[in-house]
Order: sequence, then structure tokens, then C-alpha cells
Amino acid sequence: MDIKVIAFDADDTLWVNEPYFRQSEEQFCALLGEYASRHELERELLKIEIENLALYGYGIKGFVLSMIETAIKVSGKTINADVIEKIIDLGKQMLNQPIELLEGVKEVLESLKDKYRLVVATKGDLLDQERKLRRSGLGPYFHHIEIMSEKDDANYLKLIKHLDIQPQELLMVGNSLKSDILPVLNIGGHAIHVPYHITWVHEQIEDGIDNERFKSLQHISEILTYL
Amino acid sequence: MDIKVIAFDADDTLWVNEPYFRQSEEQFCALLGEYASRHELERELLKIEIENLALYGYGIKGFVLSMIETAIKVSGKTINADVIEKIIDLGKQMLNQPIELLEGVKEVLESLKDKYRLVVATKGDLLDQERKLRRSGLGPYFHHIEIMSEKDDANYLKLIKHLDIQPQELLMVGNSLKSDILPVLNIGGHAIHVPYHITWVHEQIEDGIDNERFKSLQHISEILTYL
Repeated sequence: MDIKVIAFDADDTLWVNEPYFRQSEEQFCALLGEYASRHELERELLKIEIENLALYGYGIKGFVLSMIETAIKVSGKTINADVIEKIIDLGKQMLNQPIELLEGVKEVLESLKDKYRLVVATKGDLLDQERKLRRSGLGPYFHHIEIMSEKDDANYLKLIKHLDIQPQELLMVGNSLKSDILPVLNIGGHAIHVPYHITWVHEQIEDGIDNERFKSLQHISEILTYL
Repeated sequence: MDIKVIAFDADDTLWVNEPYFRQSEEQFCALLGEYASRHELERELLKIEIENLALYGYGIKGFVLSMIETAIKVSGKTINADVIEKIIDLGKQMLNQPIELLEGVKEVLESLKDKYRLVVATKGDLLDQERKLRRSGLGPYFHHIEIMSEKDDANYLKLIKHLDIQPQELLMVGNSLKSDILPVLNIGGHAIHVPYHITWVHEQIEDGIDNERFKSLQHISEILTYL
């Protein structure tokens, strides 16, 4: 392997993220308990989120707008403004959430920083991801942060071009097989999957992956042994 | 002048943008006419937008969330869900708006494309700006699109570093003195102001600018004579 750049996914790879979405979803369901069951609310919210994804993209602001739209729909337009206000506040709380680093992340970056160019490659809102990187204290380890509107083959090819490297000189590390692993393997890069215990259903895939440029690890610190 | 890269602001420099925000604001005021005067509604919305700017950043999704928050506030939490739904729809219409190029833009880019590296440097939501660039048909003229969470000195310095050029090798073209001109002059770059007939009040500044690296033009096509 002739790796020059290691790109790390951010949410649920460097720091905790998905549990905050799930917590907000729980609070959302509690607010709307009189209109539908938790299962129905979650299903309707997911449906509206996915419908809106092409328009809103990833990130907290789009999530909040989809929660409001769901609340209006499931209540048959009878929902009280007070509840809408609480949903907006849930979003603001999420945006202000302190950053909780995942175990071992700092040590791994410390070991790798002088041997490789490290970058963050993530989806979501630009401002929010910049804020999280700043709050994480991990900024100095990274050459820069790359925000991608969608983590697909075309955008990884742009990343490669932008980094001025060959595909086989990229190693991507992340928790989503769909976003961090498959497109990177498709374009000829290396990829390491470090699963997180919660994955948004829209990021889940079923297939096993058999590729010599792919490795699945249990913990991020195993990267050091692997490289 | 030894310009290597020309960076163009996007909204209201390459294509029409602010009028769509003003149109949505008018429709918003019409929806809430029973609660306050248009003047009061505009003032309250602006106040809430600016309060939320540090959290939401620029772009349509944050604007929609601020409109909803304003509607709840001015109605004393009595606003009907039907109105909230209409506000969400206003946002979706804005995101789906066709792109209207400003006059002369295409000819200017066509003339400059072989002599300089051209980039887009803009604020707002990543996905939305990428979509607008794609729909504009201007994509092929640009090396890449740079989305900045805030157009300040620090982020222009990052842009310079990223483009691997010296400050005096950058020329920024845009309609906002605050975002496109002053910070670029501060870091030692060149800047051309092409005013647009509507500017968001938050982007307005009072001072005249006296700097040999600055030029104000009436029309974007005058760039060709200036260079």
C-alpha cells in the first residue's frame, strides 16, 4: 500500500452523532404521542426525511424541517405552535451539543499525523461540521475539512483530484459502508470500516464486501496495526 | 497586476438570488398580516435571522426556520399549522427556483476561462449552491466551487492556501462590499465590486473604499476592459 492521504469520516467515526439524532427523535415522538404510535411516527418521519433529502441534503436544519413537516402531517394540521417551537428548540440543542470524542481517536491521529496527510471528509451542514471540528480540538491534526453534499463515486473522484493524488493513495476510514466504503472502493481507493453501534437506517446496506483494498476493524486504534 | 485566480461570488453576481428572498418575505408578511404590520414583521424576521446566523449559517433552510420562529413569536403561539406548512412550501419553492443568469455573465466567463483559473466562492448551503451551479450551466467554466461558512479574512486566507497562490494573485468579483470586497483587500488581494440593485441589509456597509487594489464597476462585462 502506498497511502498518502487518510480521510476520516466525522460523525460516529471521530465523535458521537447518531445518538443525538435518536434522542431528538424520541423527544419528537413524545411530543406527538397523542397523534400516532412511536412506530408510526418514526416511519412517517423517515419517509419525509428521505423525500426531502434531495432538496435539503444532510444535516440538522433539514432534519428539523422534516420533523416540523411530519408533525403537521400526522396531526392533520391541528398541531399547536407550542409543539413546533419545541421542535425548533430540539434542533438548536443539537447544534449546540458538546462534542464527545470516540475512544482512541486522539491517540490514532497523534500517531498518524506525521506520516500521512490527514483530512476530514463528511456530509452535513458546512457551518455545523466546522463548529464540531473546532469544538473537538482535533482541528490541528487535519490538513483541511472536506464537506461533501453526497458521498458518492463522483464526489470522491473530485476529492482525489482536489488532493492531487491517485485513487490508490487514498485511505478512507468511516462507519458507513454505503457512504465511506463502497464508493471509495469503486473508484480504486482503500477503505477501512469501523462500525458504530447505531447506524441510520438510510445508511445501512446488506451486502458483504470482498475486496483486497477493504478491511473491517472493531476499533479505530486497530488502524495503527493494520497500516 | 499578476492575477492567477479570479473568484466569483455566486448569488447576485452570477445569477439572481436576493429578489427571491424578498419575494418570499413578502409572501410571509401576507400570511401573517393579521398579527402585525409588514414593517414590524420584516423587522422581527431580520432580528431573528441575525440571532440565528451563528447557529444556522447562511442559506434557505436557516431562512425558513427563522420565518417559522418569527411566525410563532408574532402570533403569540397561536399561529395555525396551515400557515407553517405554507412557510415550508415557500422554502421548497426557493430551493427549486430556476436559475436566471445575470446579463453578460456567460460572455465574461467565456473570455476569461483560458487566461485565468476561475472559481466560485460563495456562502450558503453546499447542496443548494452545487445545484444552482449545475442548473446554471456555468459549471464547465469553473475549476471548482468553494463554499465558505463566512466570508471573512480567515476563510479567504484558507482559500488562498487551498488555491496555492499568493494573496496578490487573487481577484475576487462580487456584489457585497462586506463579504466579497473588504476581507479580500484586508488579506492583500484584488477585488472588483459589481453592485446589484438589491442587497440584504445585513450585507450593507456605509464606508467608501479607497484602495489601489479595488475597483467598482457598473456592469460585470467591464471586467474585460479593466483586466
